[in-house]
Amino acid sequence: MTDYLNRAENVLNKINELAAISEDPACITRTFGTTAFQQGSRIIQNWMQNIGLETRVDSIGNVRGRLISPQANARTFVIASHMDTVVNAGKFDGPMGVIMGLDLIEQLILAGKPLPFNLELIAFSDEEGVRFHTTYLGSKVVAGSFDEALLNKKDESGITLEEAIQTIGGNSAQLLSDSIAADKWLGYFEIHIEQGPVLYERNVPVAVVTDIVGQKRIEIIFSGMAGHAGTVPMTMRQDALCAAAEFILAAEQLAVSEPTLVATVGKLNVVNSASNVIPGEVSCSLDVRSNDASILAVAYQTLHDKCVEIGQKRAITIHWKLIQETTSVACDPVISDLLAEAINDCGYEVIRLVSGAGHDGVPISQVSPVSMLFVRCFKGISHNPLENTELADMAATLQVADTFMSLYIEKQLIM
Amino acid sequence: MTDYLNRAENVLNKINELAAISEDPACITRTFGTTAFQQGSRIIQNWMQNIGLETRVDSIGNVRGRLISPQANARTFVIASHMDTVVNAGKFDGPMGVIMGLDLIEQLILAGKPLPFNLELIAFSDEEGVRFHTTYLGSKVVAGSFDEALLNKKDESGITLEEAIQTIGGNSAQLLSDSIAADKWLGYFEIHIEQGPVLYERNVPVAVVTDIVGQKRIEIIFSGMAGHAGTVPMTMRQDALCAAAEFILAAEQLAVSEPTLVATVGKLNVVNSASNVIPGEVSCSLDVRSNDASILAVAYQTLHDKCVEIGQKRAITIHWKLIQETTSVACDPVISDLLAEAINDCGYEVIRLVSGAGHDGVPISQVSPVSMLFVRCFKGISHNPLENTELADMAATLQVADTFMSLYIEKQLIM
Repeated sequence: MTDYLNRAENVLNKINELAAISEDPACITRTFGTTAFQQGSRIIQNWMQNIGLETRVDSIGNVRGRLISPQANARTFVIASHMDTVVNAGKFDGPMGVIMGLDLIEQLILAGKPLPFNLELIAFSDEEGVRFHTTYLGSKVVAGSFDEALLNKKDESGITLEEAIQTIGGNSAQLLSDSIAADKWLGYFEIHIEQGPVLYERNVPVAVVTDIVGQKRIEIIFSGMAGHAGTVPMTMRQDALCAAAEFILAAEQLAVSEPTLVATVGKLNVVNSASNVIPGEVSCSLDVRSNDASILAVAYQTLHDKCVEIGQKRAITIHWKLIQETTSVACDPVISDLLAEAINDCGYEVIRLVSGAGHDGVPISQVSPVSMLFVRCFKGISHNPLENTELADMAATLQVADTFMSLYIEKQLIM
Repeated sequence: MTDYLNRAENVLNKINELAAISEDPACITRTFGTTAFQQGSRIIQNWMQNIGLETRVDSIGNVRGRLISPQANARTFVIASHMDTVVNAGKFDGPMGVIMGLDLIEQLILAGKPLPFNLELIAFSDEEGVRFHTTYLGSKVVAGSFDEALLNKKDESGITLEEAIQTIGGNSAQLLSDSIAADKWLGYFEIHIEQGPVLYERNVPVAVVTDIVGQKRIEIIFSGMAGHAGTVPMTMRQDALCAAAEFILAAEQLAVSEPTLVATVGKLNVVNSASNVIPGEVSCSLDVRSNDASILAVAYQTLHDKCVEIGQKRAITIHWKLIQETTSVACDPVISDLLAEAINDCGYEVIRLVSGAGHDGVPISQVSPVSMLFVRCFKGISHNPLENTELADMAATLQVADTFMSLYIEKQLIM
């Protein structure tokens, strides 16, 4: 393990080096296309060059490093994660996957054996979607599914995505040609922190991801009647907050009853609120996720009906609006089984997890088998400066990933 | 009734004249000490002078008009309401009581019979407490319970109450001498809109007020653990909003089960809220009222214990802070029975109501028997431009109040 700990320390040093580059010196923030982003991008490209990869920055700002197979017509296996961050981020979400990929490939290069496939390491330029409120910009380009309508999207200061691409030296006319053609994909592998508490609670360093959940986001407005908190008898009230409270608990109860479901009311606003005024209008968000499309669909309808029922019972008008939905993505069972085998070979309990968060594997899954390894993080905390992964867990992950790569290469040689 | 309708129309014209004077031309706003407030004050003083009262503006800006009894050592019966308003107010809340008092006294003056008590009409300068976040400034001075520490309170632009008093020509050194001594009080009578829906629902124009409720205002903070809405399983969550929702419904349920109780969560804030983040912290207000002190005390303790129980069950830390409390005030049964008799004499159903809102009678009750008449308002809507009282109801109120004054004067003559 000493060797893996040393390698983990090397990975951590690079994570720290990247974390020191931020739009805001008080915290970690590197959103798409900013000066800090470009500075981080150059460092990653240098790292790739230093281990001997053939590098380039593509038109959407993805940093890409290739190791070409001597085999004619070899397909490409991509190892990737993202290099952009949320505002006031942790340092592991994204960069850890890129830098571990770098370490894995360096080992393969040092081993000196010719590979039966091309290897490409990609640091995606925009997964979080903070600046333009659209996710997966980088991986959509690589998957060949980039929607050119997005080029007109503006950031908060009115700069379009088209202009931001020009600023970083990209050319939007090249976006389509920067994709990897569907028939050239062999597979996709990403290492990422779990961003949830399961591995922390179960005391296991790594897990195989089986699916990335599908998600529906709903905006609900409860409209009742504002009134004086002292003078309107309880029986004459149309309290919008009481209706919302009943719905919040109904959503919680439904999700608790179905293991693959989560439901969250994250935002809630009482319009014109005052301590002595009965709430007349409440708006809130609802986020529902499941890896099982039929369970998600049923839950959506059940919650909608429950909301309407609460409204009818309480004389509250309900405005229910579906504002976003994504379908669930299944990871490739063959690659995932090799990841499980690797975890087992390294002596760890094999845990299979559903990813409740979206990842670049979602757009990539349209053109390639995808796979992911989740790494334990402290209490599941993410998108937060407290985000942390222990050095020992990073070492365990490198060991598992090394083992997986050996198994995968062996499998490709046999085929 | 024609005569009463004419008088009601005269009252309404004055209400409209006052409503046209506002800090903001787009709505009705006359908070303590502003230019609009002073302009309104001068008009009210003119009206009082015009009917023959001996007028003055006291040191806190109350407009006061006296009709002296020929009897030596006569005590004082006060008819009053307030002339300040909330922001974006209705036009009846406060001014209607002052102007109806003016009309009642004008009738007595026109009748020409000497009274067995001094009559004083007061337009209180600050009941709503909008500017300095403190209620009953005017009536506390008249009751002799003004707390001089309030003089240092500042409004939003940093002006102290002391300075605001100087601006309107007052002298804070005179505040104590502007009170009516406890042994000089005979009684207190106020006409006010109900600000609740009971009379509207029961289709009755006026009601006797039996009590003004006691009130407790509590600030509650629910502290759980923020987390990713996709990655934290339902069973591992410490969702502060779900805990708050459970408490909101518990408060509603308790209040519904006890007829004299109302409980309202009017404000609720999810700290750092986002649709994809499990709420980690929620703050909310709780307003609990009852005219029965023991029921209020028991409800307060029950809700506190319920809140703690919810916190323990959900691993949520509770911060519970009582931030304001007032005790309930009983209206004088003798005067109130005369009001009921007057209502009955005028042919209306006698309804006795608890006032869920606070009124100037609260501080006055420390030195005098107090009484109130509530007038029906449209759907109970108040503190809102939609606030309305029909002309017919105003006429009915004037008839009842006239009858009451005759009964009261007769009673004083007998005693």
